[in-house]
Amino acid sequence: MIQAAIFGFGNIGSGVAAVLEENCKQVAKAVPGGIHVKYILDIRDFPDSPFADRIVHDIDVILSDPEIKVVCETMGGKEPAFTFSKRALEKGISVCSSNKELVEAFGPELLRIASENHCSYLFEASVGGGIPLLTPLLQNLAQEEIQSVTGILNGTTNYILTKMERYGADYAQVLKEAQDLGYAERNPAADVEGHDTGRKISIISSLISGKTIRFDDIYTEGITKITPVDFTWAKANGYSIKLLGRSKKAADPSGDGTAQIEVMTAPFLVKEGHPLYGVCDVFNGVLVHGNMVDDVMFYGRGAGKLPTGSAVVADMILAAKNIGQTVPVEWNPEVLVPVPSGECINAFFVRMNSTDAEKTRTVFADKISAVWSAQDDAEFVFVTCQMQENCFFDLLGKAGEALSVIRVL
Amino acid sequence: MIQAAIFGFGNIGSGVAAVLEENCKQVAKAVPGGIHVKYILDIRDFPDSPFADRIVHDIDVILSDPEIKVVCETMGGKEPAFTFSKRALEKGISVCSSNKELVEAFGPELLRIASENHCSYLFEASVGGGIPLLTPLLQNLAQEEIQSVTGILNGTTNYILTKMERYGADYAQVLKEAQDLGYAERNPAADVEGHDTGRKISIISSLISGKTIRFDDIYTEGITKITPVDFTWAKANGYSIKLLGRSKKAADPSGDGTAQIEVMTAPFLVKEGHPLYGVCDVFNGVLVHGNMVDDVMFYGRGAGKLPTGSAVVADMILAAKNIGQTVPVEWNPEVLVPVPSGECINAFFVRMNSTDAEKTRTVFADKISAVWSAQDDAEFVFVTCQMQENCFFDLLGKAGEALSVIRVL
Repeated sequence: MIQAAIFGFGNIGSGVAAVLEENCKQVAKAVPGGIHVKYILDIRDFPDSPFADRIVHDIDVILSDPEIKVVCETMGGKEPAFTFSKRALEKGISVCSSNKELVEAFGPELLRIASENHCSYLFEASVGGGIPLLTPLLQNLAQEEIQSVTGILNGTTNYILTKMERYGADYAQVLKEAQDLGYAERNPAADVEGHDTGRKISIISSLISGKTIRFDDIYTEGITKITPVDFTWAKANGYSIKLLGRSKKAADPSGDGTAQIEVMTAPFLVKEGHPLYGVCDVFNGVLVHGNMVDDVMFYGRGAGKLPTGSAVVADMILAAKNIGQTVPVEWNPEVLVPVPSGECINAFFVRMNSTDAEKTRTVFADKISAVWSAQDDAEFVFVTCQMQENCFFDLLGKAGEALSVIRVL
Repeated sequence: MIQAAIFGFGNIGSGVAAVLEENCKQVAKAVPGGIHVKYILDIRDFPDSPFADRIVHDIDVILSDPEIKVVCETMGGKEPAFTFSKRALEKGISVCSSNKELVEAFGPELLRIASENHCSYLFEASVGGGIPLLTPLLQNLAQEEIQSVTGILNGTTNYILTKMERYGADYAQVLKEAQDLGYAERNPAADVEGHDTGRKISIISSLISGKTIRFDDIYTEGITKITPVDFTWAKANGYSIKLLGRSKKAADPSGDGTAQIEVMTAPFLVKEGHPLYGVCDVFNGVLVHGNMVDDVMFYGRGAGKLPTGSAVVADMILAAKNIGQTVPVEWNPEVLVPVPSGECINAFFVRMNSTDAEKTRTVFADKISAVWSAQDDAEFVFVTCQMQENCFFDLLGKAGEALSVIRVL
């Protein structure tokens, strides 16, 4: 039997406890004797919880108990999660985290400390909730040259966009409903401004490059400007609109072999028939393109107490099977700055006033790949070919003021 | 560096060689020094191949070379693949297989021999081609009670069904096209009669139950009876038709705790919005439902030289990282006979002649969950509620002769 502790008994932490309790038979098949939660660290008490007797408020109770071999860090935020994780790892206790903010900011450092102390730092649950993603990416696809990863990585925004699409509803109205249902936070910025997706694509990009891609270096655009009219046009032409985190190997213009990577979080039009097109509601989907395996997609619940708790438990099992050694994860602290967004290559969907149609046609000329048939005579709507973003915005400035600009996958 | 050999230099075997060659840098990151193909066993010579100098015709050349630590078995069929795999494992050489026929028939025995000889028998590539499936199922979802697995597991039949749906084409005509394109074999029985899907769902069912579910004990129905008219009705009502391998935990009517499992291969109507609905052409998709993680889907190329070769190489890497020990796979030789198909619970789509409508309505009564509006006055088309298959076929016998009967997911 392995003795474990939970740092942070909120939504995910209580999910971890529930999975370990409910599925103790399954866990015991993987780890002889199972995994027992001996302590739960939280500043609060939970007198009505069946786990009330395991709550402690002092981390030293846990760290000074030599029986503890594995902890999960489900606190969220940078501090005290960082300090607590570091202290556990320094004691040789493996840490399994669902905390994308911490992993994004301190992943390489915590991995180094784990390695120095013959234990593991694992964080499958920090990206894609319950979806097996990072392990298959690092293990089943280790032999691949990963050319791109494109993901719907945030359930809240996917829920909002799905409702807008289905019911022609307004962004603000759907956001309010999502908040009332508890799907969106009262302060929804982290989700709707794309920060959550951005942190996740930053972690994925770091793992596929082996270096550090910082969230702060990634162009991040949210969904707050998407309107029902955008959806009307998209639908009529066989597209949906999804918030995507995207990472792809870029061409090497300098020719010096420097690894180049384009990373971006933004809404994209996604064509019917594309594997991500059907990923709706709170579900997440991550499409990986390898040079040999071609397209592979992972789909499931990207959030939620039990799915995310389940992914944390999978890591705790892996850590428990590797006591005394380090499950290897390659992530170098060396920073790799992605290609500036202006130099990224994308296609764009553009809605203009019809009065600007003639000038727009002249300015964009052969960069227009399709003009969409009029839904509404007042608008001139077109899609560009793949082009450098700087070049696109230069032309757009000359053409007039766009009613809407959304990238096209 | 790890020295390896390839048994069988056909489509998949040459894919393995290509992946190891092309992606040698990636492989060397995972296995220091990389994996080198020292021998290729085949009865043929390949004088024009860059690997011509590694071809051998005698397995003893390979088995007597103490440098060889890993082989891949990409021969297909039961013999001599079984004997060769067994002999390699007995020498402590790990075997990675893409051969579903062999894995289905002799998986537990080969796993036992591997374990006794401190080496590994791995077969990720035998199910779902390039899609990471078995490893995530056994590792990332080890903590789950897997309640069902539903998969589009055969690219050839999915290609045929997709073309029938898109172009209203006839089965025989599309099959011929698929044969001309090389997507279907000249003798297509293994694909179109569902045997390939059946063997794969048998392997998956065995792994999730830990016991042996034999292909011969599974009800298997192919796609040869599906007509363009079925697709017309399905499409008009928001459904597609897919050949599915399905495995689900059944209720325990005896109440004695005996594990019961329903396993079946058959065409099913799949509703728009279902994750498998959008899995088209030669792609495969496998939906796993766990009690904690809910739905998870794995999607990708289920066949093809490079995707399947890539999955074999992933296993070779795993074996190479575990030289001298056994990568554990739990698969007990004890046979678990699935619930007889007549006792399985399913819903059905039924097309009858309109002349039988009245009698059918009387006979099925409240078992009809929806009557579909007339596409064609000559037909009476309905969908039943979920019911025992025996009961359904009894009622159908009383109602008249059906033009078509297809299960509904």
